[in-house]
Amino acid sequence: MFDKRSYVLLGLPDEEFTQRRPGSNTMTRREVRAITLANLELHASTILWDVGSGTGAVAIEAARLARLGHVYAIECDMGALAAIEANCHHFNATNVTIVAGRAPQILQDLPDPNAIFIGGSGGALSPILEVAMARLCPHGSLVVNLASFEHLYEATNHLRQANWTVNCTLVNIAHTRNILDVTRFAAFNPVFVLTASAPQRQEQPVAERSQADA
Amino acid sequence: MFDKRSYVLLGLPDEEFTQRRPGSNTMTRREVRAITLANLELHASTILWDVGSGTGAVAIEAARLARLGHVYAIECDMGALAAIEANCHHFNATNVTIVAGRAPQILQDLPDPNAIFIGGSGGALSPILEVAMARLCPHGSLVVNLASFEHLYEATNHLRQANWTVNCTLVNIAHTRNILDVTRFAAFNPVFVLTASAPQRQEQPVAERSQADA
Amino acid sequence: MFDKRSYVLLGLPDEEFTQRRPGSNTMTRREVRAITLANLELHASTILWDVGSGTGAVAIEAARLARLGHVYAIECDMGALAAIEANCHHFNATNVTIVAGRAPQILQDLPDPNAIFIGGSGGALSPILEVAMARLCPHGSLVVNLASFEHLYEATNHLRQANWTVNCTLVNIAHTRNILDVTRFAAFNPVFVLTASAPQRQEQPVAERSQADA
Amino acid sequence: MFDKRSYVLLGLPDEEFTQRRPGSNTMTRREVRAITLANLELHASTILWDVGSGTGAVAIEAARLARLGHVYAIECDMGALAAIEANCHHFNATNVTIVAGRAPQILQDLPDPNAIFIGGSGGALSPILEVAMARLCPHGSLVVNLASFEHLYEATNHLRQANWTVNCTLVNIAHTRNILDVTRFAAFNPVFVLTASAPQRQEQPVAERSQADA
Repeated sequence: MFDKRSYVLLGLPDEEFTQRRPGSNTMTRREVRAITLANLELHASTILWDVGSGTGAVAIEAARLARLGHVYAIECDMGALAAIEANCHHFNATNVTIVAGRAPQILQDLPDPNAIFIGGSGGALSPILEVAMARLCPHGSLVVNLASFEHLYEATNHLRQANWTVNCTLVNIAHTRNILDVTRFAAFNPVFVLTASAPQRQEQPVAERSQADA
Repeated sequence: MFDKRSYVLLGLPDEEFTQRRPGSNTMTRREVRAITLANLELHASTILWDVGSGTGAVAIEAARLARLGHVYAIECDMGALAAIEANCHHFNATNVTIVAGRAPQILQDLPDPNAIFIGGSGGALSPILEVAMARLCPHGSLVVNLASFEHLYEATNHLRQANWTVNCTLVNIAHTRNILDVTRFAAFNPVFVLTASAPQRQEQPVAERSQADA
Repeated sequence: MFDKRSYVLLGLPDEEFTQRRPGSNTMTRREVRAITLANLELHASTILWDVGSGTGAVAIEAARLARLGHVYAIECDMGALAAIEANCHHFNATNVTIVAGRAPQILQDLPDPNAIFIGGSGGALSPILEVAMARLCPHGSLVVNLASFEHLYEATNHLRQANWTVNCTLVNIAHTRNILDVTRFAAFNPVFVLTASAPQRQEQPVAERSQADA
Repeated sequence: MFDKRSYVLLGLPDEEFTQRRPGSNTMTRREVRAITLANLELHASTILWDVGSGTGAVAIEAARLARLGHVYAIECDMGALAAIEANCHHFNATNVTIVAGRAPQILQDLPDPNAIFIGGSGGALSPILEVAMARLCPHGSLVVNLASFEHLYEATNHLRQANWTVNCTLVNIAHTRNILDVTRFAAFNPVFVLTASAPQRQEQPVAERSQADA
């Protein structure tokens, strides 16, 4: 049998993922995942934190792109942890480490990341952002997906107060569904994809730097 | 200087691309590009045709994902060809071949692709689809981005008459713009991302097949 | 008790309407209704055909605006007819006539309308448009709400072949839902609101006209 | 000449309005106006405050619906005031009073409204909401159109702290534009339409109330 699972880099089909609860489907959809991954600016060796990993869909696709890097899928919900494990196995994700525990505390022992994705915050959005800003490597990318405008406001505010640059994409996606002989569009709920980067440090000329070091 | 160009796999910034005409900006945006690439189901060795390559943005990002594969950027507009060349050079895309000429005729001499993207059709949508369906490798993915519903209808109709499966995603994206002290959203025009796959051939069990061959 | 039903002109709440089937909710939503009514360019004395009236929501709101006019709510589905009747009673719509039967045949005996809304066509879109174009009064407005792009194409094509001017609005609406302490957006499915007007007849100068009449 | 201006109740064409500055077009579009008016729950005798009236488009359409009522178009920008006046004259709006001045101060001398629309706040959103909540008649409707999520957050927060019920509609509209022989969609920027109503006062049974009064 021909199996796309074994080689497709991006665009794994949503319906192949085990959900955290039967019937529920709160995973980041394929299209939103693609935008999220683009904003994370992944490279082959990226170390990624996926905070609130849910079904692990972003973690697993990111791990395919960052084939020489590593993804930490952080999650505290038991059902979700089981789903991530099933999905990592199904998609043969070998460079994903599942981290069971509650952010931001659990982040302490992880290596510094080049990219951070926050897909869920369990009510601790600001403390997680605090740790994310402290730990993200220089030139790294921080992406937060948000469904509520209160969280959008909270995240934007928190990041801007630390002089981070914040941009946001509002994503409205609808998919065709064939009904009888015509094709209708079924909408997904809108998502705010927030992307932030650290303030650029003034790079000193070499001469000055030497003086300063002295 | 730190240069993300050299390593980012997906999500190259739109403003780094040379446009086909100064002031014009008809390129496939970063977000739509990400969705398009996801739907192309690229793998490391994909051979991709990018028909109506425009600024070459899809071709260049696809080439980063298909690092062992090859991308053919097909384009007939002189200004666009210059832009593609500038962009391939800027982003150091070594596995992109620029093909100057008009589709579908020009497609004849290219190797069979695993994936086809049609971003522009120059009024020859149906003939291009005809060649695409004939030449796409088994299990390959065909993606067509469309701005008009007449073309959406034409493409869907044409593909379905050949028993291809067609799905379409309607993409509405808006981006924040900081105006004074508040953040507003500026909308991009809606795009229809059509994705099609060939009818699955009935796979015969080996025994039957031997009989049939006899 | 204070009852907004008795006086609100526009914006009747969706949840006050009896649905055609318990649990189903295919009615034209308040926001889409408002856009539809705006495009119908109603005046106080408008005669409106509401073809495929469904729950009667558009008919009932139109009847409030066209307080000296009259609305014909045309519907063939038994469940829908019962819903329209219940809703006309609930909202005390006195200038709505419910017309049970199948369009376009049933339209024959109705008076010529100043405005026509087609919310459902039961597979007879083109024949209904044919009658609509023939019967709509000069300067009248024709609005068609469509969920599928095949119907959008069919309607646009049919109207343009008769030299009608066609415009279309793509409506993507999402509503807040309060979940715990945050506010999320739930999307309605996208709708195409097509608006058409007849070709303007060349108005002859009086002198010429006299000559022509002679 | 046949002139729709004289009688259309809703859906006046955007291009018939004088803009506040040549070339600028920040008016509330026809579709968003229709949704706004629906949410204002106007009746024939409504007294409406239109705060930050801009071009006066909402005021003028509201005045047609509230034919026995009155609309106060409040605006402090000189260019906008001239546009409102031109538009009131063009559309023969006799029940609109133009109020030149800065909200919330200028609101003090106006009669209590049944409906309030805030289309612009000139940096005084919270103080205007304060006066709006204090002055809106019982069962009245308050609608605020917002382009930025900071203002959306500020308004929602302010209203909820006073126990008002807040709902919000995210409106994404795109319009067809005919380009050569095909029809493309051009998007308007997304708008948040916030609608709020006062907390319902506990209505005491008569007997209890008498006791309490004693």
